[in-house]
Amino acid sequence: MAEQVATNITWHDGTVTRHERAACLQQTGATVWFTGLSASGKSTIAVAVEQVLIQRGHAAYRLDGDNIRMGLNKNLGFSAEDRTENIRRIGEVSKLFADAGVLCLSSFISPYAADRDAARALHDEAGIPFIECYVEVDLAIAEERDPKGLYKKARAGEIKGFTGIDDPYEAPANAELVINTGTMSLEASVAAVLACLEGRDLLT
Amino acid sequence: MAEQVATNITWHDGTVTRHERAACLQQTGATVWFTGLSASGKSTIAVAVEQVLIQRGHAAYRLDGDNIRMGLNKNLGFSAEDRTENIRRIGEVSKLFADAGVLCLSSFISPYAADRDAARALHDEAGIPFIECYVEVDLAIAEERDPKGLYKKARAGEIKGFTGIDDPYEAPANAELVINTGTMSLEASVAAVLACLEGRDLLT
Repeated sequence: MAEQVATNITWHDGTVTRHERAACLQQTGATVWFTGLSASGKSTIAVAVEQVLIQRGHAAYRLDGDNIRMGLNKNLGFSAEDRTENIRRIGEVSKLFADAGVLCLSSFISPYAADRDAARALHDEAGIPFIECYVEVDLAIAEERDPKGLYKKARAGEIKGFTGIDDPYEAPANAELVINTGTMSLEASVAAVLACLEGRDLLT
Repeated sequence: MAEQVATNITWHDGTVTRHERAACLQQTGATVWFTGLSASGKSTIAVAVEQVLIQRGHAAYRLDGDNIRMGLNKNLGFSAEDRTENIRRIGEVSKLFADAGVLCLSSFISPYAADRDAARALHDEAGIPFIECYVEVDLAIAEERDPKGLYKKARAGEIKGFTGIDDPYEAPANAELVINTGTMSLEASVAAVLACLEGRDLLT
């Protein structure tokens, strides 16, 4: 086997370009950035979108608390400074995935507009599509859902600096997509994300 | 277009598995970790390997100083502590790429064995292939090449803590692959990496 591999090796000067990777994967990389309150439904939508993309043969990958907070960002807490660094790193990693040709689905509360705008700017500077998807929900509804009991703990003062309770959520002013999960079904939400990608020629 | 997209949406409980992503990309993700002195030829080999992989239709991506030091790790310097954090983050990001199904080519001096071993452990714990490729070269040869004039500056004391001069390079004891660029051509080096991947069924 090794001998076969050793044949047919050619290369050109310089590094592989994003265009070459896109041609290889037959798609253009992009970042879809889901932002919203805890329990807004961000990750539920991102998980479903990832499933549909993979089913349709697209290279897709989801970044969220599960694979970031316990890994890359495990040395960060929840101070304002650490939240900013958290989102800065995620913005950089999202950009790398999108540069690699992958449809990167990043799902984080990302409460501060300046931090999200910085992630967008990284992509803009590199000419990589960045789609901000605001997963909107009334605080009262999110608090009623409270699947992990976090709002309850925040109201009781057991968690400090909780977004929506004693730390602000700055809603996006110019998101490419707004999904209100108080009124839209999961199916409709997923369809809206796919339509948004389709409209930007990212699913061809 | 949007209406078409909205149809044919189905999903299952839980998140997309690594196995599903591998099936979609028709390959298994893995990390190839190139380590060696400055001017050892690590990045030259990684660039050429990436080109061949992309030509052959494999999803591949290279992490190196160009896209990490100026981005994700721009807030890190060259102290021992920062070097460790530098490699820790790169290990985490490499693991994410490999988890996404991509062949991740990580090219960094990564002089400390403990840091490389930590990157390997992250992969091992997740059951993700990690291939350490030691790009070996005599210091004298690397210093003679000195394409960026860094060794000269280090000898002159203009750069402190330079690997091989006044900071140690701890050679891997159990690398999956050793390439001596003092004696091997670039073509032979690339063939060796491909043969190593092939031997692990990573190019099927």
